[in-house]
Amino acid sequence: MKTLVVGANGQIGRHVTQLLKEAGNHEAVAMIRSEEQKDYFESKGIQTTVADLLDSVESLKQTVEGFDAIIFTAGSGPKTGADMTLRVDLDGATKMIKAAEVAGVNRFLMVSAFQANNRENWNEKIAHYYVAKHFADEELKRSKLAYTIVKPGGLINDPGTAKIKIGSKDIIERGTVSREDVARVLVACLDKKSTEYKSFDLISGDQGVEDALDQL
Amino acid sequence: MKTLVVGANGQIGRHVTQLLKEAGNHEAVAMIRSEEQKDYFESKGIQTTVADLLDSVESLKQTVEGFDAIIFTAGSGPKTGADMTLRVDLDGATKMIKAAEVAGVNRFLMVSAFQANNRENWNEKIAHYYVAKHFADEELKRSKLAYTIVKPGGLINDPGTAKIKIGSKDIIERGTVSREDVARVLVACLDKKSTEYKSFDLISGDQGVEDALDQL
Repeated sequence: MKTLVVGANGQIGRHVTQLLKEAGNHEAVAMIRSEEQKDYFESKGIQTTVADLLDSVESLKQTVEGFDAIIFTAGSGPKTGADMTLRVDLDGATKMIKAAEVAGVNRFLMVSAFQANNRENWNEKIAHYYVAKHFADEELKRSKLAYTIVKPGGLINDPGTAKIKIGSKDIIERGTVSREDVARVLVACLDKKSTEYKSFDLISGDQGVEDALDQL
Repeated sequence: MKTLVVGANGQIGRHVTQLLKEAGNHEAVAMIRSEEQKDYFESKGIQTTVADLLDSVESLKQTVEGFDAIIFTAGSGPKTGADMTLRVDLDGATKMIKAAEVAGVNRFLMVSAFQANNRENWNEKIAHYYVAKHFADEELKRSKLAYTIVKPGGLINDPGTAKIKIGSKDIIERGTVSREDVARVLVACLDKKSTEYKSFDLISGDQGVEDALDQL
């Protein structure tokens, strides 16, 4: 599948593009915000396209045209203010969803946050971040796209183990998960039609990625 | 109608409770965040109820039970960060909408912002505020409530003139409007069934409130 990685220059995004490149069965394009981010991807033989989540739906539609899938790993991050969380994590994601709909991109994988769907389980210190993720997820669920919403626990930079635990119907315990494993799960979801229209929490665990996803 | 004014202690909210009190045909209750805000309203003979938009839907449901209408004039304001814009203006409004639905409160009047429905017309400097208002409005439109969304231009503290201009189908020019006139329009909408399921921009103009609303 021709897959656009949004937020490709982020930590999870870089893992995703790398894993897609290694897998070889998909054509991955990194959506980057500026030409300066190009070198990193070109040195790895990964194509890029320049676009900004602050752009209009119309402009983003042109970016996503011709793709089969979008992996949304973008976030304004903790270095900018909550105003950018609103504009990127919520409104940017929503514009991408609309752009995908009008451009006929059917598949949309979203990186959300652990228990973003349950207000009572939000981390009070970054509750505003959960608001943004929650509303973006709801927008995606209401869309006509074949979505998968991956809601990872605390993100860490340790190397991935490819061993995970997922929770969909039941709420699992809070935990951490390496960004590499989040990326691995996203790439696995792209290949697994049974993950469409699904939403699940993700922490590190002791189950193989394929096995865990098969139980969704 | 038994009407709950959410954000009653805000500038528009105070005008709304005052006008409802003067009109006399509705029972107005001011929703306030703390006991300290009580004196202002009690001195004017206006009932109060203490609740916080950071509370759960379940808790807010108990607050809104028995009301016929909600006028939502709350906003975290420019003194707090955009994190509170997310939590109050967006998530707080959404929780109130859900609470109204489960409690069987049918009528919901929302104070939004001029052209909140059109991204291309957002004020770039406070675009995050427009994101919050836009998503809250969308949430309300998708609800089963009889909504009216009032989208005022630049808010000023001048005394109201009761002369306005509204735009619904066509986009009108940008302008200002006094908070008192916004409150006057909200109270008029409460009495006018034809304003249900309507959304309109509002600036000061030269038309009487009733006449303008009749043209919706």
